[in-house]
Amino acid sequence: MAPLRPLRSLSLLFPSLRVRCQRRHLTTPAPPPTAAAGPSTPVRTPPSKSHLAYEIPDSSFPRGFLASGVHCGIKKLPTLHDLGLIVSTTERNSAAACFTRNVFKAAPVLVSQEVLRDTGGRAAAVVVNSGCANAVTGKKGMEDALDMARTVDALRDVRTGASDSQEAASTPASQTLVLSTGVIGQPLPMTNVLNGIALAHANLGSTFLSWQGAARAFMTTDTFYKLRARTFVLAGRKCRIVGIDKGAGMIHPSMGPPAQPHATLLGLIATDAAVSPAALQAALTYAVDRSFNSISVDGDMSTNDTILAFANGASGMERELSLAPEDREVYIQFRDELTAFATEMAKLVVRDGEGATKFVTVSVEGAGTFQDAHIIASAISTSSLVKTALYGEDANWGRILAAVGAAPVSTPPDPQKVSVSFIPADGSEELRLLVAGEPEKVDEVRAKEILKAVDLEIRVVLGQGEESAKYYTCDLSHDYVTINGDYRS
Amino acid sequence: MAPLRPLRSLSLLFPSLRVRCQRRHLTTPAPPPTAAAGPSTPVRTPPSKSHLAYEIPDSSFPRGFLASGVHCGIKKLPTLHDLGLIVSTTERNSAAACFTRNVFKAAPVLVSQEVLRDTGGRAAAVVVNSGCANAVTGKKGMEDALDMARTVDALRDVRTGASDSQEAASTPASQTLVLSTGVIGQPLPMTNVLNGIALAHANLGSTFLSWQGAARAFMTTDTFYKLRARTFVLAGRKCRIVGIDKGAGMIHPSMGPPAQPHATLLGLIATDAAVSPAALQAALTYAVDRSFNSISVDGDMSTNDTILAFANGASGMERELSLAPEDREVYIQFRDELTAFATEMAKLVVRDGEGATKFVTVSVEGAGTFQDAHIIASAISTSSLVKTALYGEDANWGRILAAVGAAPVSTPPDPQKVSVSFIPADGSEELRLLVAGEPEKVDEVRAKEILKAVDLEIRVVLGQGEESAKYYTCDLSHDYVTINGDYRS
Repeated sequence: MAPLRPLRSLSLLFPSLRVRCQRRHLTTPAPPPTAAAGPSTPVRTPPSKSHLAYEIPDSSFPRGFLASGVHCGIKKLPTLHDLGLIVSTTERNSAAACFTRNVFKAAPVLVSQEVLRDTGGRAAAVVVNSGCANAVTGKKGMEDALDMARTVDALRDVRTGASDSQEAASTPASQTLVLSTGVIGQPLPMTNVLNGIALAHANLGSTFLSWQGAARAFMTTDTFYKLRARTFVLAGRKCRIVGIDKGAGMIHPSMGPPAQPHATLLGLIATDAAVSPAALQAALTYAVDRSFNSISVDGDMSTNDTILAFANGASGMERELSLAPEDREVYIQFRDELTAFATEMAKLVVRDGEGATKFVTVSVEGAGTFQDAHIIASAISTSSLVKTALYGEDANWGRILAAVGAAPVSTPPDPQKVSVSFIPADGSEELRLLVAGEPEKVDEVRAKEILKAVDLEIRVVLGQGEESAKYYTCDLSHDYVTINGDYRS
Repeated sequence: MAPLRPLRSLSLLFPSLRVRCQRRHLTTPAPPPTAAAGPSTPVRTPPSKSHLAYEIPDSSFPRGFLASGVHCGIKKLPTLHDLGLIVSTTERNSAAACFTRNVFKAAPVLVSQEVLRDTGGRAAAVVVNSGCANAVTGKKGMEDALDMARTVDALRDVRTGASDSQEAASTPASQTLVLSTGVIGQPLPMTNVLNGIALAHANLGSTFLSWQGAARAFMTTDTFYKLRARTFVLAGRKCRIVGIDKGAGMIHPSMGPPAQPHATLLGLIATDAAVSPAALQAALTYAVDRSFNSISVDGDMSTNDTILAFANGASGMERELSLAPEDREVYIQFRDELTAFATEMAKLVVRDGEGATKFVTVSVEGAGTFQDAHIIASAISTSSLVKTALYGEDANWGRILAAVGAAPVSTPPDPQKVSVSFIPADGSEELRLLVAGEPEKVDEVRAKEILKAVDLEIRVVLGQGEESAKYYTCDLSHDYVTINGDYRS
């Protein structure tokens, strides 16, 4: 179940290789600190994360969806998947999305927005490619993205026997959403892509291996494929939900619903619950704000960030969950289930952040508004100085405080009221660093112990109000620089 | 003239040394890329910058100022200066300042603001220490900062023979500004500091060596002391101006005049022109917005950032330059002189940014407003992905564009109108990367050549209006991570 690793002999065969999936091969060997280098300099490589990709029983995946992933030649290395397909086989599908708020939205983002609008949230398939973002590719890029969607439409029609050459001529709205990730500013190799779509379609399946293949097709610098599934009960029916996402750089999403578009974070969530398009969009927007929009790897917002959600009703729920008052209670239950699942998926992206050796939860409490708490948590999570201190396992709370003080909030914190502490991952007592503006005498040995763990929580209490926000971030390591100093993304 | 380097034997004597000035000793030796590591990974150490610290003739320094710098024991290594003093010897002094806008302003910032207010901009001295920022140090920190100012006041009185025990009891407004830089959250060793002030006062002088000593006392992770002087003619009189500043991390200043306080960037500019406090503050605010507030090393805004300006009239100008209409022309001339000098000083900070191997000018042109141009230039300058690509010497303009598109501007750019190019440092033709939203076929060999130079300009043209802004930034290197993963600042 470990992620696919290219053989060393293969990378020797392709010396000009620039494929992000090979992150381990790009890693600079860490030189041991020498006596001549003065104080010990922490040079640590990220720990293996392959245990985070594991087998999921076939029965856990939602009913009525088929998935597959193949290699079609966008990435050079033939062992790496670069094209995936997920389709619903039911009649009545709902789809929703949150897209990047970047001004330079990639062609697949623009095409997917159009499909959602044209179908009224009734899209039934998604095609994904990795290795090329099809971003800033001009008119050709738009044509290519549309071609991808249309090719899937045509194959699905063939499959369901509904194809008709005259109907095709009147170009009905496409039912296929498009996701792309990889290098910006380069055109897609369309012959490979179209052949890949046909191959993926021929290999569609509903087993773990099918979903694993699709998840692998999402990967760029990710060191493991990100796939999770859960079951839950909704309106008396057992429902299933599956999630796939990917990072691992240019991660600081700000995504919104199609109307006010939002990171290259790509994610897909599919459930066999029956949910109306409006209810699915409302629940997804709520969930994304509290999950994917609260993570940061490097503070850079991508041109391609997209989270998609599908609900196909194959669980056998009697009718679609709506936003009507009578559905309110069940809707809240679904929304919270989706939020919890999205948070689990979002955390996977941070845990696999480029070069990441730490997983850090930043909790800001006692704020006047959620917005202010979120802005401060974001400021701490994106500070290069905080992130290098975390990498160095240094209890440098002064840097945390400097980030808090520089955050562009509506109501500035009162320096005399702010407290900062570390919450150890092992459940032991919190370590107070600053209490109501006065620095504590810090037990540096204990601080060092807490910071040695992979997981850590930074808690900042503002003492202004009752609102709070959480952010998930990672450290800034030598490997981050190595990965991004080398790769054309 | 090379910056002082501690002997290796000394760092062996002090194994727990954490003094930032020793940056070279903290640097991780760069491992050569090996065949097994796949594609060549650029691991480059910053070039030596010691040629940027050079001797300045004694006659270039402004008249009527005395300076000195000593070691008093804040930094452990006895060869490193950590306390400096600059005093004016004339009767009529003007002082102005721009302070950090961070909510957590350090004690020296608060004390200096008070001194400027109490004296109506008539401060006549500044004491500076490095190694300890006296930030987030509670009430004790405020007392310590005030003690530093008072101690200088007392020594100056002694020197001018104006001391009187009864006068001292009525605690007249201090005439001394205070600057501190270094670790946050630790108290100053006040016995050392007060002894240091006395030693510095006894060593005041007006030669190059005096000023060089003061400049050394500003240094933390700086690899060279930053000292410049110029002469200019104002109202028919030859005037002189001297500048000292320091970086080299937590550099993304946003500073404003005392009323609306603004990076740890510390800077001091002193001139023997005669300028009223109001005119000096107006000119400094204008200059700082276009110089120090337009630089970024790591995007982190400090609790201590301060730029001070002194004008003592010792050039013999007949009267103080004011903001009155009749002085307008001469004022503009002074303001522009100050802005050009401040820009030279600000660039030195970027050139010595922690781990910096590149000096990059980011020009954003064709914006609707200066503010929008400045925000976009700042977004490019702080993008970790842009900065690692610069370090990797990779023409990755997609990352530049992603940063442009994510910038929080008032009028978003039109993707179809945006152009991006590299301006080579050697004066050769610009290399177009994107023209009006369409990617160019880039000559990668030429791009690589341009990127190999230490200096580079990124030009972004928005096509929206006539306004423009420049930002100065550096790359994000392995050394940045090494320096900041190790040092408690």
